[in-house]
Amino acid sequence: MYEHLLYPKSIAVIGASKDEKKIGNVILKNLLYYGYNGRIYPVNPKNEDIFNIKTYPSIKDINDEIDLAVITLPSQFVPDSITECVEKGVRYVIVIAGGFSETGKKGAELERKILELIKGSRTRVIGPNTVGVYLPKSKVSTALTLPDRTALPGEGCLAFISQSGALGLLTMDTISEYGIGVSAFINLGNRIDLSETELLDFFKEDENTKSILLYLETFKNGREFFNKAKDIVKSKPIVVLKSGRTEAGAKAASLHTGALATDDSIVEGALKQAGIVRAYSETEMIDYGRALGYQKPLTGDSIAIVTTAGGLGVITADYVASETNGVGLKVATLDDKTKEDLREVIVPFGSVENPVDLTAEGSTEQYDKVIEILNRDKNVDGLIVYALFQTAKVDESLIDVLEKHMSEKPMIVGILGSKFGKKMLLEAERRKIPAYPSMERSVKAMKVLYIRGKYLKGRNVE
Amino acid sequence: MYEHLLYPKSIAVIGASKDEKKIGNVILKNLLYYGYNGRIYPVNPKNEDIFNIKTYPSIKDINDEIDLAVITLPSQFVPDSITECVEKGVRYVIVIAGGFSETGKKGAELERKILELIKGSRTRVIGPNTVGVYLPKSKVSTALTLPDRTALPGEGCLAFISQSGALGLLTMDTISEYGIGVSAFINLGNRIDLSETELLDFFKEDENTKSILLYLETFKNGREFFNKAKDIVKSKPIVVLKSGRTEAGAKAASLHTGALATDDSIVEGALKQAGIVRAYSETEMIDYGRALGYQKPLTGDSIAIVTTAGGLGVITADYVASETNGVGLKVATLDDKTKEDLREVIVPFGSVENPVDLTAEGSTEQYDKVIEILNRDKNVDGLIVYALFQTAKVDESLIDVLEKHMSEKPMIVGILGSKFGKKMLLEAERRKIPAYPSMERSVKAMKVLYIRGKYLKGRNVE
Repeated sequence: MYEHLLYPKSIAVIGASKDEKKIGNVILKNLLYYGYNGRIYPVNPKNEDIFNIKTYPSIKDINDEIDLAVITLPSQFVPDSITECVEKGVRYVIVIAGGFSETGKKGAELERKILELIKGSRTRVIGPNTVGVYLPKSKVSTALTLPDRTALPGEGCLAFISQSGALGLLTMDTISEYGIGVSAFINLGNRIDLSETELLDFFKEDENTKSILLYLETFKNGREFFNKAKDIVKSKPIVVLKSGRTEAGAKAASLHTGALATDDSIVEGALKQAGIVRAYSETEMIDYGRALGYQKPLTGDSIAIVTTAGGLGVITADYVASETNGVGLKVATLDDKTKEDLREVIVPFGSVENPVDLTAEGSTEQYDKVIEILNRDKNVDGLIVYALFQTAKVDESLIDVLEKHMSEKPMIVGILGSKFGKKMLLEAERRKIPAYPSMERSVKAMKVLYIRGKYLKGRNVE
Repeated sequence: MYEHLLYPKSIAVIGASKDEKKIGNVILKNLLYYGYNGRIYPVNPKNEDIFNIKTYPSIKDINDEIDLAVITLPSQFVPDSITECVEKGVRYVIVIAGGFSETGKKGAELERKILELIKGSRTRVIGPNTVGVYLPKSKVSTALTLPDRTALPGEGCLAFISQSGALGLLTMDTISEYGIGVSAFINLGNRIDLSETELLDFFKEDENTKSILLYLETFKNGREFFNKAKDIVKSKPIVVLKSGRTEAGAKAASLHTGALATDDSIVEGALKQAGIVRAYSETEMIDYGRALGYQKPLTGDSIAIVTTAGGLGVITADYVASETNGVGLKVATLDDKTKEDLREVIVPFGSVENPVDLTAEGSTEQYDKVIEILNRDKNVDGLIVYALFQTAKVDESLIDVLEKHMSEKPMIVGILGSKFGKKMLLEAERRKIPAYPSMERSVKAMKVLYIRGKYLKGRNVE
């Protein structure tokens, strides 16, 4: 029943308010501001309407099924609200407020009470101490972001689950600039009920999600999570940014989310065994999620590199081949026939060895032919193509060429620059071509296609 | 006499032309377009004036000292032009054209001829096969860039020497978006005369340069370069991106610039001994150059982390501490007095342990006090401060606070986000506060401050 959470048809805002200082005011306004087109029900016994929307004294007075309720009240009022939500049969309840286990004994007691109240019911709780959800397709945001301070991404195919709200919002703000979208963002907060494990199931089912990204400081139930992940990675890639991997980090995590330290080598082993790709930074998490979500896995380790700037070819070859400061793949040795064919296309002072260098004379047509030729070479498993728009002989149609070849061997695209380059990077993203603004990031994206390919092969998954 | 190259008072364009298809047309237009305010002398025997500027049949006819001549003619005409430049006593000559040693024997012969012609004269040659120079302070660009395709950075304090023209231009286009400036860019091209070694001297003298960045596939004269570098790093940091470090990369380099492979462990050892910081990507090269150019070195390895988002503290602590996926520094253990003082400033549910977490309640004033307190703690050698503008209690004045503390312990700033964050990142750059849009990059920038500090200490340089 993941649709009730990811695509809610009705939302109740418990504690909706006319007072601009109240969270219930901001969240209700956000639903209106972002244009949520489901049914909105403000709940507040003191008002008959808020923003001209009929307001109910209790959620139980609403004559409709409620998919999602957002409790915006302070912690001490939450249990009573939960009771009403359970009685109403609400599917999902987001508890925004802090003041629970993260503040001590009294707060922990409140959490136990909530769990007691929902036991045996169909009501599930997200949080407490959470920014809630951001669902771009449904145009729902329960996060208390300032619109002029934080950008939220558009619709995309990355599902993003984060134990930390702020880290999630900061990451989404950052990727907005690159036109990268999400299918949904869910902040686990104190995670007393709904956890990352069940969300894996939700996103496995969700057809708008192509890859699942998680930021975690701990696993709520590691064994269960890894078992489930092992099944799901067969059809959808999972990327985990697990922090607290050092003693210093684990100590910080224990202060942040009350995480108990786990030996990182155990985490590392479990991730590998489950076929989860590990990221070490927010940038890697998104980069890997895009590569795996937009592109098929690699079936071998030999990479062809296409460039119009020789220096990029050299640096990229280093990154591809190096075990220490690189990813330890192979720079493909091209077939003689390939080189002959390339010679027909490329200017005489260009290189038909790998990295293939079209030079600044390289045109959109040449890119097209060169990629085609390399796709025919059985020594080539994947391509890193630098689409450099700084020279006169390429134009916007190079993006069409890249899109056309997306159905062939796995291809990662590098697009550098700020003016035209940035514009084309956004256009590539719009078409779900995995493009990166740096050489290192392009090569690392290729590596995760290899990791996934090798893992699936080892488990005989086609 | 580096001023003649870096701040030329007079430039002759040999082969200046009215024909828009000619390089001599574009380069002359660029000088006018960028607003070069020195004296411009077009040279072309077929025209009396070009763009209403008096044009000379030969450089020898100009009644002025010529600091810089740009030969825009095809390779076969270059030797005669060089002869005239030598006779005129021109200081620096840029030879743009390709068609020299990179194309074979005949071209190599032309290069030998040029070297013969300048022998014993005061004329020095840059190139051939080069995009030349970009000098933002003098408003000079000899690069054939398309203005709507490639952005060029503003004035800054990074000197950038690149063996590859395209890589140099792509990198400059990329950094333009972040407001990062250069003091000068020089493309060595085939490097028959003027080399990276002498340019080190130039930039040592140049007071607008704070750090020197080099992209090299080979060293022209390694021994001399490293000896000189070892002297210069005492006063100015040097960062080298040396590619061709793997077999695959070296092969690619040999095709690109005719580089002969050097065992990379020898390069690595020489760089370390000379106190040069090594970068492996264009991003690292610029990141490290900014950190070292804007900030003092670290005198110890204990880092304090300041954040308003707990998750960033955890991930950063991991990166600081980890030897395998991190930089192997220490997360400082704060003094008890420090924690007491912090407790006075931070909200109760914030953390006074390192990483210090102000939470979303963190205000500009709190940042100010917290940084001040941490600067007093003898257990803290440097600070990584996340300036997160997504929350309501910080505003633009946080940049003033950071600027104020720039004179204290080495500080690296992390600024994430696209909307307000990006704007503040640009403002930090304008004030030469080393700020980075990712956690990993912030931590790595701190690491190079440590590397430099340790190196200088080992050589007893204060």
